[in-house]
Amino acid sequence: MGDNEFISSLDSIFYPKSLAIIGASSSLGKWGQMILSNIMVGEFRGKIFPVNPKKKELYGLPVYGRIGDIPLPVDLAFIMTPAKTVPEILSECGKKGVRGVVLITSGFSETGETGKNLEKEIVGIARENGLMLVGPNTMGIISTYADLFAIASHTMPRKGSVAVVSQSGNLGVQLIHWSEQQGIGISFFVGSGNEAMLTCSDYLEYLEHNPRTHSIILYVESVGEGRRFLDVARRVNQKKPVIVLKGGRTSAGQTAAASHTGSMSGEDSIFRASCRQAGLLNVSVPSELLDLSAGFSSLPLPRGNRVGIVTLGGGWGVVTADACNENGLEVPKLPDRIVETIDKYLPEFWSKGNPIDLVGTRDREVPIVAVEELLKWDGIDAVISLGIVGRLELARRLVDATRKVDASASPEFLDRVENWSQKYEDDYISKIVELMETYHKPVIGVSLTQTNEGTVRPRDGRQYSGVFYQTPEDAVNVLSRMVTYYRYNNRRH
Amino acid sequence: MGDNEFISSLDSIFYPKSLAIIGASSSLGKWGQMILSNIMVGEFRGKIFPVNPKKKELYGLPVYGRIGDIPLPVDLAFIMTPAKTVPEILSECGKKGVRGVVLITSGFSETGETGKNLEKEIVGIARENGLMLVGPNTMGIISTYADLFAIASHTMPRKGSVAVVSQSGNLGVQLIHWSEQQGIGISFFVGSGNEAMLTCSDYLEYLEHNPRTHSIILYVESVGEGRRFLDVARRVNQKKPVIVLKGGRTSAGQTAAASHTGSMSGEDSIFRASCRQAGLLNVSVPSELLDLSAGFSSLPLPRGNRVGIVTLGGGWGVVTADACNENGLEVPKLPDRIVETIDKYLPEFWSKGNPIDLVGTRDREVPIVAVEELLKWDGIDAVISLGIVGRLELARRLVDATRKVDASASPEFLDRVENWSQKYEDDYISKIVELMETYHKPVIGVSLTQTNEGTVRPRDGRQYSGVFYQTPEDAVNVLSRMVTYYRYNNRRH
Repeated sequence: MGDNEFISSLDSIFYPKSLAIIGASSSLGKWGQMILSNIMVGEFRGKIFPVNPKKKELYGLPVYGRIGDIPLPVDLAFIMTPAKTVPEILSECGKKGVRGVVLITSGFSETGETGKNLEKEIVGIARENGLMLVGPNTMGIISTYADLFAIASHTMPRKGSVAVVSQSGNLGVQLIHWSEQQGIGISFFVGSGNEAMLTCSDYLEYLEHNPRTHSIILYVESVGEGRRFLDVARRVNQKKPVIVLKGGRTSAGQTAAASHTGSMSGEDSIFRASCRQAGLLNVSVPSELLDLSAGFSSLPLPRGNRVGIVTLGGGWGVVTADACNENGLEVPKLPDRIVETIDKYLPEFWSKGNPIDLVGTRDREVPIVAVEELLKWDGIDAVISLGIVGRLELARRLVDATRKVDASASPEFLDRVENWSQKYEDDYISKIVELMETYHKPVIGVSLTQTNEGTVRPRDGRQYSGVFYQTPEDAVNVLSRMVTYYRYNNRRH
Repeated sequence: MGDNEFISSLDSIFYPKSLAIIGASSSLGKWGQMILSNIMVGEFRGKIFPVNPKKKELYGLPVYGRIGDIPLPVDLAFIMTPAKTVPEILSECGKKGVRGVVLITSGFSETGETGKNLEKEIVGIARENGLMLVGPNTMGIISTYADLFAIASHTMPRKGSVAVVSQSGNLGVQLIHWSEQQGIGISFFVGSGNEAMLTCSDYLEYLEHNPRTHSIILYVESVGEGRRFLDVARRVNQKKPVIVLKGGRTSAGQTAAASHTGSMSGEDSIFRASCRQAGLLNVSVPSELLDLSAGFSSLPLPRGNRVGIVTLGGGWGVVTADACNENGLEVPKLPDRIVETIDKYLPEFWSKGNPIDLVGTRDREVPIVAVEELLKWDGIDAVISLGIVGRLELARRLVDATRKVDASASPEFLDRVENWSQKYEDDYISKIVELMETYHKPVIGVSLTQTNEGTVRPRDGRQYSGVFYQTPEDAVNVLSRMVTYYRYNNRRH
């Protein structure tokens, strides 16, 4: 199959004009109900054809007995009927001219010898019929730009540039849920399932050419064609960061993986060494996948490891400086020029160094002045800003407490303070994003609190987004990995 | 000073019957306003005497011109007037018979030579007058069982058994805010500030004897009397876990700490080695302080490192098993007896191993059966349970989506499903807490999602609480540190 044909086939999976749901249902909690309701709530703009011989109508849509009964063309079929029904349905899909199949059904190679044989059989049928197969045993796909949310969990991340490919469906779906909570923009999700036909390497090749996707998250337990995977991943990673979590690194993890996907996950030390050689971003825990994707998708790359720190309190400056040094980042001494500029805003005894400790100032300007002075200076490559965004919640509580105890306080005045705090936080984020566009250096925020607003705070029409991690260690880890990525891709050959 | 006298002095700080706020104010955002409003909103049950020569009344309370004008006894004084006014005010406090002073005011040793001398002077005055001094340059104190919330941030953690002592006020206050968000119960907070008189070691000695406090969080940048600190901490740690974060471990962190507290933070490798010898729980990042305190304050100690894992999906089982092995925990093979019991509940092809993968089952009983079977078995010391608590949010979304698309669905039925999901989660937590009380082994939960319910989920009248971390790596880290603590305190001498 040529490159163009391959891409066009996968386009019919990820950008279908029409889709059939074979096994659609109205029974709450059944796969056929969860996927159908999710696709409808997500407002998929193409045609939706539920298929179920026992139904006439579902959610206001006409239902077809078999896929062959659908009077219009079908690009993509979701199948969730029992394993033994799948061979015949695939043949019917072929006759109907379907190009892509997302095979939710489980009970194939993950269940033993009989399942393995059935899986071989359906791959044969799919090949004969020109069908591209996602799965089987997949939790589904998401294609945000097609408004297609075809997973069982009703979680809808915003449109963005991060693609998620996961060999574990439930881990992948949870990553998508975290993306939604953290405000990380997603282009695609695919649970690759048993990878009977399409593999991680195939999805990587597809995403390599996808203009909406700028970074890729990958959860793998075993890689069938290890050589090809590393070749593809290395090539893609030069264009778009590939962030990899490998499950089954230890004997306990390998035992678990063997019973999970039925495949051996191989020697971890070799996998890690290969990833390092290929410049991939190898991580150890799922939350790191999200942290890194938030940074890579929202910030300019740092061109070196020198960090300026701006903090609202001394202790946070200390722990951030420690974290920097422990992660290979430098915290250089400030030039006199910057100290003199900041002198104009702060009490005489301020830190006069890096970290710049704003000593709990309420001055509106100096946090931005400090960040911009650092960005202007060619002695630093990135800024970490702690505690400006996140203060809003405590300001709100102060206002609430004052409302309770101070009968003489003007309600209008208190409302104004609250609105002002909200606006200050919004303006600060906008200004940070502008500064990143001006100076092409990342400014990583730390909110120091669990907020409902999420990690990524996009601004309309802007290339970059505000990024505010809850803890300094997360910000430092991401920055350190971005430096590594930049250096690998800009090393002398 | 004898032990009893020392404890009684500190009791007058942490359990005062009456307090004066010298520098009380109604100007929103001033220290005197934030502390006064917070104490009032927290419903302190003792007497509150605001002191300010320019006011007659504040928030409905009579205001006194000087502390000497107060007609009733005063146990504790908060002072937030400028540094130069402090010597005279301290003398007046002495004459009034005050026993404890929380000196919020800054501008002492942290600002240079003049400040250092002023600090020496006030310590002399406090000694002459029998005053115990917290600070100066402190962000205040909290004593939850006295309903005393005397910090500038309006954050009110629930009553509990964790005490927080921090040399950095703003870091400490943020830890308290996190405690509130995560549901971690707090007994005390003290920002030790410049430690002109009372030091971390003193607070540790006080907490050693405090029956409400079962574990202690400590953030330190420098320890004045290193020998005494380690002796005290070692002794206390044998009774109550002492969890320590040392700021200024690196050259960047030390530079930051020097400009912050004006003190050198010393050699980190020596500090860490001393902590290890003393069996203290040394951590690297602030969030770990909270994670550990949640576990130590809510769960029985594991008596070994063998872990049973129960998961709703294979991928999470794999990453949890990996994290266990990478943190020194074993994931033993299950005996046939347990496999046979679980066989009755799950499809034929379930994992039949540890992790026990419940394969997305909706069976109500099997998650609890699996946990109890593991706890009964003498081959494991702890259980990690993934994904039961946390599923509620996704259940709610499924119900919401169905409400939107399914005109024929019964609203009562959908309400019932939602209520049932809520009740199932609540019942599960209660059952887990009961099982911990029966088997005296910890069950650590992982919610796999950011919830608003917090990490710690207490049950009325129960010794233990449900603990649900967002990620498996946090659960595994805490469990691993609990094993280390248990082993240190139960080693053969």
